[in-house]
Amino acid sequence: MKLKLLYSDIKPELDLIEQELEQAVDSESPLLNDASLHLLQAGGKRIRPVFVLLAGKFGNYNVDVMKQVAVPLELIHMASLVHDDVIDDSEIRRGKPTVKAEWNNSVAMYTGDFILARALEYITDIDSPRLHHVLSKTMIEVCRGEIIQIEDKYKLDQNLRDYLRRIKRKTALLISSSCELGAMVSGADEKTVRHLRKFGYYIGMSFQIIDDILDFTSSDEELGKPAGSDFLQGNITLPILCARSNPEIYRLLQTNLNKDLTDEERLRIVQTIRNSPAINEAKAISERYLSKALKELNELPKGPARKTMRNIAFFIGKRKF
Amino acid sequence: MKLKLLYSDIKPELDLIEQELEQAVDSESPLLNDASLHLLQAGGKRIRPVFVLLAGKFGNYNVDVMKQVAVPLELIHMASLVHDDVIDDSEIRRGKPTVKAEWNNSVAMYTGDFILARALEYITDIDSPRLHHVLSKTMIEVCRGEIIQIEDKYKLDQNLRDYLRRIKRKTALLISSSCELGAMVSGADEKTVRHLRKFGYYIGMSFQIIDDILDFTSSDEELGKPAGSDFLQGNITLPILCARSNPEIYRLLQTNLNKDLTDEERLRIVQTIRNSPAINEAKAISERYLSKALKELNELPKGPARKTMRNIAFFIGKRKF
Repeated sequence: MKLKLLYSDIKPELDLIEQELEQAVDSESPLLNDASLHLLQAGGKRIRPVFVLLAGKFGNYNVDVMKQVAVPLELIHMASLVHDDVIDDSEIRRGKPTVKAEWNNSVAMYTGDFILARALEYITDIDSPRLHHVLSKTMIEVCRGEIIQIEDKYKLDQNLRDYLRRIKRKTALLISSSCELGAMVSGADEKTVRHLRKFGYYIGMSFQIIDDILDFTSSDEELGKPAGSDFLQGNITLPILCARSNPEIYRLLQTNLNKDLTDEERLRIVQTIRNSPAINEAKAISERYLSKALKELNELPKGPARKTMRNIAFFIGKRKF
Repeated sequence: MKLKLLYSDIKPELDLIEQELEQAVDSESPLLNDASLHLLQAGGKRIRPVFVLLAGKFGNYNVDVMKQVAVPLELIHMASLVHDDVIDDSEIRRGKPTVKAEWNNSVAMYTGDFILARALEYITDIDSPRLHHVLSKTMIEVCRGEIIQIEDKYKLDQNLRDYLRRIKRKTALLISSSCELGAMVSGADEKTVRHLRKFGYYIGMSFQIIDDILDFTSSDEELGKPAGSDFLQGNITLPILCARSNPEIYRLLQTNLNKDLTDEERLRIVQTIRNSPAINEAKAISERYLSKALKELNELPKGPARKTMRNIAFFIGKRKF
């Protein structure tokens, strides 16, 4: 089952948003065009636009209004990805070379800045101070999350709360805002807006935890990058936090942290985590967020949008890569 | 004569803005705080807030409204500086180590992102779609300017138009927008807004050209960084474009472009440009912009604000460092 099949209800609108994204990153500069299109065409799940559109179905759905929110939210996400690759020194993402690898750090940095500026240009057309507030607050939190991620790198002794706060800022908030803003601009009532915001938050947390698990349980081919990349880059994720209670694993992790590892050493760590109970412990935490997300959905009126959201939530919770 | 003496009319408001800037970059993260304060305390001329305030004097001046525009404009400028230092691999700015030198590229990148997000948060409180449009357009052009600067690096054969377009985007637009927006939010009439926008553009062009000249004519100590840094970083500025018509200088530049130069080699190039007619040619172009700026001022009502703007314009046109 592919995620995109779940989107079939909103396929024409998503195609429209894809076109708009291409137009949005268009510029006179050949270098900027190439880098932005490279990033856009590397794909992605377009989770944020999907949630904007679906949330809009709970109000007065007007695709021209929805796209004004969906496009900038995906652009903000893209900008953060291209800056992430600089931080993490990532050579490859989704099986393709990153902008920083294909060009360099400087091009990656300004491509991110440019895409962000384009996002802002889109948003200026929306006359809603509340929307602007939600968005700027979200962007600030995303940036703070990124800085905290740098601060927390290579710290094996951080606690679970540090991790959860980090992924909230890094991932959950933007998904939460997508749901919230989609509902808000379609004029959905306050109660609906609130439930959708919470749904987005919980599903975002679940989504990121699964992502962090897959970094250990998937193959290099499935991931489109080397398994264990998070550990290589010093990012301490949930599977590691669960696994470290075993003193032997703790020593193994501690010894290999912040070192240039051979492929063999890297795979040994990946295997150790994969075969430990940590994976199931992390999955259980993800499932708790998933069921909280589903509870929020149950508070919303029945209909095809709720059903699609439910299916996507299940897919995210159970996905293999 | 120091530039700050010219600001005495608006000193209390500028102090207020300085406090607001400090609050704006405050965050829970110690790393982010340190990096942002480091950047803020490295100082700068605060030209953009000054122009916002002075432009506001042509309408109904209310300092609480003016600061809502002045603070984000300075923040946007600061964010672009910290990203510039990554691009240019600058170790030192205004006599102090840059954020990228004191910490690293990643911290510099996210400090810039964070400061930018804070700027946006400030702006969201202003209910003026037109203002939001001007600002997002300006930010897009600034980013495009930066990317074009990367594309144009080390190209000794570019033409004058390329250079002028680059400094327009890099510097003149943000100063122009400062004047325009200051006038706009204070409710000045359309004619005044237009003249102030043009004044800002011309003075911004003059300002950047002088900056590019000083990179050759000042000492390392006066600049707070090595003289000739622009050339070292591959940025082809107006003095170089003027000097290259001499075949001997052209060969010297061509041979030393994109190479690791010793201090001696660097100073030889700086001396050659400094002693060539290129400096006076570049100054003449700067003066043409300066007189265009003064013409725009003459169209505005007489008064202390116009006088201060005039004094600042002259100072910028004649400054030694």
